[in-house]
Amino acid sequence: MAAEMAEQPDVLRRLLARLPELAESVRGALPRRLAGSVLIARGSSDNAAVFGRYLYELASERPAGLGSPSLVTRYGARTDYTDHLVTALSQSGRTPEIVTTVQAARERGARIIAVTNEADSALAAAAHVVAATEAGTEVAVPATKTVTAQMLALVGIATALGPLPANLVDPADLAELPDAVGLVLADTTAVDTLAADWARHDRLVVAGRGLGGAVALEGALKIRETSGVFAEGISVADLLHGPIAALSARVPVLLIDVGGPTSPDIAALRERLDRDGIPHATVSPSLPALRSESARAIATTVRLQQIARAFALRRGADPDAPAGLAKVTATN
Amino acid sequence: MAAEMAEQPDVLRRLLARLPELAESVRGALPRRLAGSVLIARGSSDNAAVFGRYLYELASERPAGLGSPSLVTRYGARTDYTDHLVTALSQSGRTPEIVTTVQAARERGARIIAVTNEADSALAAAAHVVAATEAGTEVAVPATKTVTAQMLALVGIATALGPLPANLVDPADLAELPDAVGLVLADTTAVDTLAADWARHDRLVVAGRGLGGAVALEGALKIRETSGVFAEGISVADLLHGPIAALSARVPVLLIDVGGPTSPDIAALRERLDRDGIPHATVSPSLPALRSESARAIATTVRLQQIARAFALRRGADPDAPAGLAKVTATN
Repeated sequence: MAAEMAEQPDVLRRLLARLPELAESVRGALPRRLAGSVLIARGSSDNAAVFGRYLYELASERPAGLGSPSLVTRYGARTDYTDHLVTALSQSGRTPEIVTTVQAARERGARIIAVTNEADSALAAAAHVVAATEAGTEVAVPATKTVTAQMLALVGIATALGPLPANLVDPADLAELPDAVGLVLADTTAVDTLAADWARHDRLVVAGRGLGGAVALEGALKIRETSGVFAEGISVADLLHGPIAALSARVPVLLIDVGGPTSPDIAALRERLDRDGIPHATVSPSLPALRSESARAIATTVRLQQIARAFALRRGADPDAPAGLAKVTATN
Repeated sequence: MAAEMAEQPDVLRRLLARLPELAESVRGALPRRLAGSVLIARGSSDNAAVFGRYLYELASERPAGLGSPSLVTRYGARTDYTDHLVTALSQSGRTPEIVTTVQAARERGARIIAVTNEADSALAAAAHVVAATEAGTEVAVPATKTVTAQMLALVGIATALGPLPANLVDPADLAELPDAVGLVLADTTAVDTLAADWARHDRLVVAGRGLGGAVALEGALKIRETSGVFAEGISVADLLHGPIAALSARVPVLLIDVGGPTSPDIAALRERLDRDGIPHATVSPSLPALRSESARAIATTVRLQQIARAFALRRGADPDAPAGLAKVTATN
């Protein structure tokens, strides 16, 4: 896991160089008048999809949402995807329900983009455009380099859907991202301190909003599957809408702050937690070179990988092969 | 909470009588050619939206997904909703971010349906069609009768979007629903047994798939906010894709079986949990009169309300006014 995490600057740098070409292919594959976008994924890829969904809707100015594979594989949905863009994300390109769903969508008019690490997979074969993450083989069970590569690929695809404000996606800023991720990886002090203090907890909440909400979901999944800590990722808005009542001094909260327009929400939640006596820590790597929210979200995802791994090591778990997990899941 | 739960047969019976008229209004408000549907909600209403989303997509044969209010309220999205149906669900009709999002969607072409218990609310004022749940004032903080009424309203709206198979939605079956919910409420034995055994756990997982996945999300939220137990609702497919590794003998699983095409998924997970030595129980009320999945999902939601309340009472919590929760949340 550590070795694959360390490859991220190189993986992201190589992918960055291919983003203009990817965006061009996406532009060529779009319907004349886009009606909406659907992203389909499971697990870590699903969290990358939540991240991409914000960028897609803001860039295309058409509704973007997450698809549910069971609609096709269990309920036999015959959804008409005319004028829709469907983006499927699967590291292996082999998750059966994702492949089945994409094939059905293509038969019914969807333009398909596959974001995958396996350019010769069944998923890639079903797509009009393949966004190959080319992250190299991922051996450790917890997905790391493939997730941040998926996120960057989604940034590239989104730029083909329409303009995005520079505080969200900024090409100059993206060029800094590989080095920034290198800095995050090199700085382990904050993570070690957090793990020393927090790894003993059996439960924790990881909260963010917007792009930071997607990072929170991914961070929680990574912590859960790597360390066995029962971490729950949640949107700050959803947390305030109810579950905050179930928190106590025994359930600390990791706050994900990726900057941007949801940063005040994080600050407000922090005040509320202080008032209620609930322990919290904020994950927000100090990266002055990165000003755009999408780049900061990717760098913060790397920070949470470090946290997940540090928790696992502190708890005596093997971060490379957590109990009960296989690399390719065969849900269909 | 118990008093409001007990009103559900009457609330559902009254709403059932109004469903044909509601479906007619929806038909009149639809765009000539529907491009897609978006459902917008928070908290319990969001779980009802997940339920409705399956029915919408299957009936309309066009993509249906959940909207994210922060796109408008934080990121200033200018999403074009031409030919889209937007359904907003809010018990109070006053959640600021929902009202703001709906107003923005209407300005940009959406046809709006408001599912709300307050027909003179700001949300209702912003809608083309108001699906009034008319469940009466809900005093207890955990939403119960308004949630099952929202679910039934969504069934009615979905029938206006296109045909649905009888094993999913069946008018004859729906006519039996109020009495079936009465039977669920009258039968407390299974719930008391479960609570005696399970209420001591601080964590549990509530798992389902498809319509049963929506019921699992709502059941987990209800257990969490009513009893303080850290219950996590999750799709069976997502659970198998990773988080199952974090389960242990100390984290029991409630399996939600509402019948229909996801029932074999529940059976398969049950076998896996047996093999792994993880305690589990299946929530699937015995209601031979109900054969359609949507009706069974609503009845099962009531069963989970009972479970949430029984857990709270066993743990010495006040189910009517859980610590830290207000009835109308002001997230915006």
